[in-house]
Amino acid sequence: MHECCTPIRTAVIGASGYSGEELVRLLLHHPHADLVAVTSRSSVGRTIAQVFPRFASHPEARSLQFIEPNVASLVTRADVVFLALPHGVAAEFAVPLQAAGVTVIDLSADFRLRDAAVYQEFYAHAHPAPELLSQAVYGLPEVYRDRIRTASLIASPGCYPTSVLIPTLPLIRAGLIRPGGIIADSLSGVSGAGRKAEADFLFCECNESARAYGFPKHRHLSEIEQELSLAAGERVTIQFTPHLIPVNRGILTTLYLSPARHFSSAAESEALDAEIAACYRAAYEHEPFVRRLEGKALPDTKNVVGTNTLELAWRLDPRTGRLIVVSAEDNIVKGASGQAVQSMNIRFGFPETAGLI
Amino acid sequence: MHECCTPIRTAVIGASGYSGEELVRLLLHHPHADLVAVTSRSSVGRTIAQVFPRFASHPEARSLQFIEPNVASLVTRADVVFLALPHGVAAEFAVPLQAAGVTVIDLSADFRLRDAAVYQEFYAHAHPAPELLSQAVYGLPEVYRDRIRTASLIASPGCYPTSVLIPTLPLIRAGLIRPGGIIADSLSGVSGAGRKAEADFLFCECNESARAYGFPKHRHLSEIEQELSLAAGERVTIQFTPHLIPVNRGILTTLYLSPARHFSSAAESEALDAEIAACYRAAYEHEPFVRRLEGKALPDTKNVVGTNTLELAWRLDPRTGRLIVVSAEDNIVKGASGQAVQSMNIRFGFPETAGLI
Amino acid sequence: MHECCTPIRTAVIGASGYSGEELVRLLLHHPHADLVAVTSRSSVGRTIAQVFPRFASHPEARSLQFIEPNVASLVTRADVVFLALPHGVAAEFAVPLQAAGVTVIDLSADFRLRDAAVYQEFYAHAHPAPELLSQAVYGLPEVYRDRIRTASLIASPGCYPTSVLIPTLPLIRAGLIRPGGIIADSLSGVSGAGRKAEADFLFCECNESARAYGFPKHRHLSEIEQELSLAAGERVTIQFTPHLIPVNRGILTTLYLSPARHFSSAAESEALDAEIAACYRAAYEHEPFVRRLEGKALPDTKNVVGTNTLELAWRLDPRTGRLIVVSAEDNIVKGASGQAVQSMNIRFGFPETAGLI
Amino acid sequence: MHECCTPIRTAVIGASGYSGEELVRLLLHHPHADLVAVTSRSSVGRTIAQVFPRFASHPEARSLQFIEPNVASLVTRADVVFLALPHGVAAEFAVPLQAAGVTVIDLSADFRLRDAAVYQEFYAHAHPAPELLSQAVYGLPEVYRDRIRTASLIASPGCYPTSVLIPTLPLIRAGLIRPGGIIADSLSGVSGAGRKAEADFLFCECNESARAYGFPKHRHLSEIEQELSLAAGERVTIQFTPHLIPVNRGILTTLYLSPARHFSSAAESEALDAEIAACYRAAYEHEPFVRRLEGKALPDTKNVVGTNTLELAWRLDPRTGRLIVVSAEDNIVKGASGQAVQSMNIRFGFPETAGLI
Repeated sequence: MHECCTPIRTAVIGASGYSGEELVRLLLHHPHADLVAVTSRSSVGRTIAQVFPRFASHPEARSLQFIEPNVASLVTRADVVFLALPHGVAAEFAVPLQAAGVTVIDLSADFRLRDAAVYQEFYAHAHPAPELLSQAVYGLPEVYRDRIRTASLIASPGCYPTSVLIPTLPLIRAGLIRPGGIIADSLSGVSGAGRKAEADFLFCECNESARAYGFPKHRHLSEIEQELSLAAGERVTIQFTPHLIPVNRGILTTLYLSPARHFSSAAESEALDAEIAACYRAAYEHEPFVRRLEGKALPDTKNVVGTNTLELAWRLDPRTGRLIVVSAEDNIVKGASGQAVQSMNIRFGFPETAGLI
Repeated sequence: MHECCTPIRTAVIGASGYSGEELVRLLLHHPHADLVAVTSRSSVGRTIAQVFPRFASHPEARSLQFIEPNVASLVTRADVVFLALPHGVAAEFAVPLQAAGVTVIDLSADFRLRDAAVYQEFYAHAHPAPELLSQAVYGLPEVYRDRIRTASLIASPGCYPTSVLIPTLPLIRAGLIRPGGIIADSLSGVSGAGRKAEADFLFCECNESARAYGFPKHRHLSEIEQELSLAAGERVTIQFTPHLIPVNRGILTTLYLSPARHFSSAAESEALDAEIAACYRAAYEHEPFVRRLEGKALPDTKNVVGTNTLELAWRLDPRTGRLIVVSAEDNIVKGASGQAVQSMNIRFGFPETAGLI
Repeated sequence: MHECCTPIRTAVIGASGYSGEELVRLLLHHPHADLVAVTSRSSVGRTIAQVFPRFASHPEARSLQFIEPNVASLVTRADVVFLALPHGVAAEFAVPLQAAGVTVIDLSADFRLRDAAVYQEFYAHAHPAPELLSQAVYGLPEVYRDRIRTASLIASPGCYPTSVLIPTLPLIRAGLIRPGGIIADSLSGVSGAGRKAEADFLFCECNESARAYGFPKHRHLSEIEQELSLAAGERVTIQFTPHLIPVNRGILTTLYLSPARHFSSAAESEALDAEIAACYRAAYEHEPFVRRLEGKALPDTKNVVGTNTLELAWRLDPRTGRLIVVSAEDNIVKGASGQAVQSMNIRFGFPETAGLI
Repeated sequence: MHECCTPIRTAVIGASGYSGEELVRLLLHHPHADLVAVTSRSSVGRTIAQVFPRFASHPEARSLQFIEPNVASLVTRADVVFLALPHGVAAEFAVPLQAAGVTVIDLSADFRLRDAAVYQEFYAHAHPAPELLSQAVYGLPEVYRDRIRTASLIASPGCYPTSVLIPTLPLIRAGLIRPGGIIADSLSGVSGAGRKAEADFLFCECNESARAYGFPKHRHLSEIEQELSLAAGERVTIQFTPHLIPVNRGILTTLYLSPARHFSSAAESEALDAEIAACYRAAYEHEPFVRRLEGKALPDTKNVVGTNTLELAWRLDPRTGRLIVVSAEDNIVKGASGQAVQSMNIRFGFPETAGLI
């Protein structure tokens, strides 16, 4: 465990996007971390407070200036570096930083896949550092906590994958659902598109609008299917349809699943429902950031926005024989920066909820 | 056909909700209809302009006052009466009005189902007028145009059912998809909840929120399954999950369908895609209010809000063997009041688009 | 008056922005106008339906293609050309079109000011065609209807100026308020910023945000003060503070005015209130697009969005001696394209409300 | 100063509204406070986690149940009680609690005014406990910090008053502006209306809407004018116009002020600007929750929502001779619950920012 009285030194590369901004927020408040460097080519020389006025109440935000991303300099300053960069670019920093002994927590897709060929299929360019794939740990604490403890390169999961995997993995592992035929239908807030000046994401183009996009072969399928396949012990292919809705933050995912067992009578339904409840309880009872809703309650993104919690609830439909699970998370927190900090906490031996509740 | 130079006389009962308000808007502008009466217990004595300031530019809106709903009086005044009332209540007006020879276009669920037992199952009370069910025509013009022409009681479809049925019925009838296993995942604007003062629909409870509700057994399933079963020639059960998103208007429905035929190669996909295109073309080429999107375009509620048009597009997924169809409509126009006026146009021999484009 | 049975031929230059899109909508529906040409460099070769799917139900929208803006070609095709272009650029088209006898309705600021020096002061470049300024008519029908009838170059007013001038001009002309010390505090929807891909107008930057901008010397001050000065017969300087709020459309302007006469007792207040009511009645009783609210009603942008109507209401405050007037309009309709079509109706002798109610 | 190692015991009466919910959030996280009781008649017997799922990650939220508001019981349990109740009702609890030696922090208007007659004028009923008015301290820390330290009854300011008073008081005290003729034009998020199920605050009635309300004599004028008058040493009457805009949280206030000194030349403007800057610096340099923006930056509610910070910026307008100051705050935090906790911190000798940054 990290020495309790010496905070670790952290840096964020690519801190001007929404995920980077949230990392800055979390690290400024973290009881065991100091934020020592933030980089963004467009903001060099400006303080955090100038770039993000909402943080200006923090003394460090008023003094810490954005710098050019320089690996040599970061190596001497930071114990852990968060990469909030586009895929392809992240690897350029991950390789030398990791080689120099800095722990890297990468929020891009660059190290999430174990197979460079799958990366190339979904991201349309050769993997920039395939030799590192075997060392990278997929940073989903609810699954890989033990490996995260000793990882030098943590590939923090995508926002949609988190919302799909946490509800499905325990059911697959327990054999309660068939791994085939899974459908994930997701709604995302506009921050998921990043802070890019594109006409499609202007206020007037998103407000009073709902639309599907990027289906049937969204990039996030690659990591979702990788993890589901590992859990199932067989190759799993799923259906995934993301939608854009006019909220700043939040992902709501509705999952259509096939229980492995037939049910139709009330008694069969109740028995299966109890098994599902027990499965989730066993998996998540002690997880600080997974909340199983009870009774009539259903997930609502407004109840998780700003938190690192994922909410889930489920319903069996005896009419169709399906199980429907709904999850809600903040796409920028549990779906990105909060989860990355959760991995940092695990990696450095801090209480897992430090700076996150 | 109705005599072109004499407009028909129309009335709206229950005109203070969102569907009623939209009916008022459409009828005030209709080239072949006069709005002669509007009722709403809470607004008696006030003019349309006072209740709905946005219509105040219309001379009739400034003179026409809300009255008490009185069947005897309506019978003498109106050729057609629209009922924008809760289920159960609508039948109280439909029965005597229809008996008196007035054409009734009911926007409630009271006459959409052919089987009173199904009504009782889904609406939790006995059907108030089962003897009329056999006379009522389901007011989906794309399916029942001919029957609408002579109907005395038109049961205008629900908002979700319209968004599901228009995309699926041609495919089922053509045998292109299997009727089993259909999933409809819908997003609705908050106007779908009506103008009720309930805390769940306050601005701060809906804004920055996304949530599923009313599943797995939503009332609208009853009419969706009735119509799908009729088209399939067999009993069809579907999965339907509605969600509430922070827009005023609009429904986006994503349908997960199983093509009857296997496809996986590019050639098989293309061939099937062409068949689906041909099926939709045959069904909707001449339909004024169904728009099939081409190329990369996908439905977006902002492109249909305020119109009577339903947009649809589809994608085949060779990875999963599924067909995904997405539709977008204005829940208050094509999903309610616009469709009701479309039925009126058909019933009275007006051009079908009169007052709707 | 224009021959009733031959529609005029209209063109829109710069039709891909929000004002251009609204012009297209209005002209597609206009009973006395044909839309014969639309231009936008970025959309050449695409149909209106492809660029604006929401209009795809109109046959012309499916056939009319965007073309390059070519003056020679437009001169032969169109009777009236609307310019929905940035200031500075508009004049390049206005000059040759007007010289060739085409009626020009310019939605930019290029011809709103009578004094080229004021233009240079507020727009930071020399006026591109000062020789035309004396011919241009400020297209505010409530003030310049007679001059619009014969104008060859109509400078359609800005969105904010319309919201300020309609409520204030009658009071100034009647001597009911002092022209000095006027404050206009305006809230605008994001469409006012145009369809530019700038980070400041991304959904996540505008949603859940309210901010003032562009004060104390916003460009629109120049035309507001010009018109107020003309009405007052003396040089008028006002305070104007625009704010951006998260709605697509709508301007709400709150005006702080000083009655010329002291009032404090209830009797004095009532007498002054009656005079103001009479003044507004005299000015606007027969105006189809100005709505004076009565009783407790106050303007709300949602009641005017999508219409060419400006709503206004006022309150006297005996505590401060001030008169507060609030106006609401759709910034893209009465504040831009609707008002431009209103001017076209006047210019060509159509009923003034043609295509606008 | 309070003994550092023993947290104080806090209770919230009326915890089911938006201010109550925010108090619960702040107190659950507070390093020196335990939340020992929450009351709300509608939620008795349910835990905080059940009523507010977003807090369910906190152990106390899962165990602490809502109870009936019972003074005798609260007296034994709590050191400080927050009242988040309607005016009139709050006094019923404040009187016995304060008499029993419990520190009361009242978020209602009941104890903000020094003069019971003014209370009656603005709140339309007799003051329920006029004998306590002289003991109550107006809980604006930037003004009354010293008195708050020893207060037994703290009347936490209203949301609008906070947004008006912090920007204006230093200028008045310094004689930089004339106290006469002040105009405050405010925009508020819908949470300001509370969690009442009223049709006016339904999502569809607020979304895509902007409207003024409650002017010219809003209740908050009474406390604003009281405090301005005390600062000015003379009776001050101001103009105040609140508006409702479609955001959940945030108040943006634009103030129109008259500098005491004439300025028009650039040199005069700069000199005055420097004096204003110096005045604000002197007043707020060491205030942890007042942020003076520099350069081109202007307040934006999105930069303060969720924080206890008030942002302000100003501009001199040499054209009109006015000074315009804009402030932004979170109406529920600095405008209500955060400020109340700030007062608690002062009262109990905690660091003033404890639990608030």
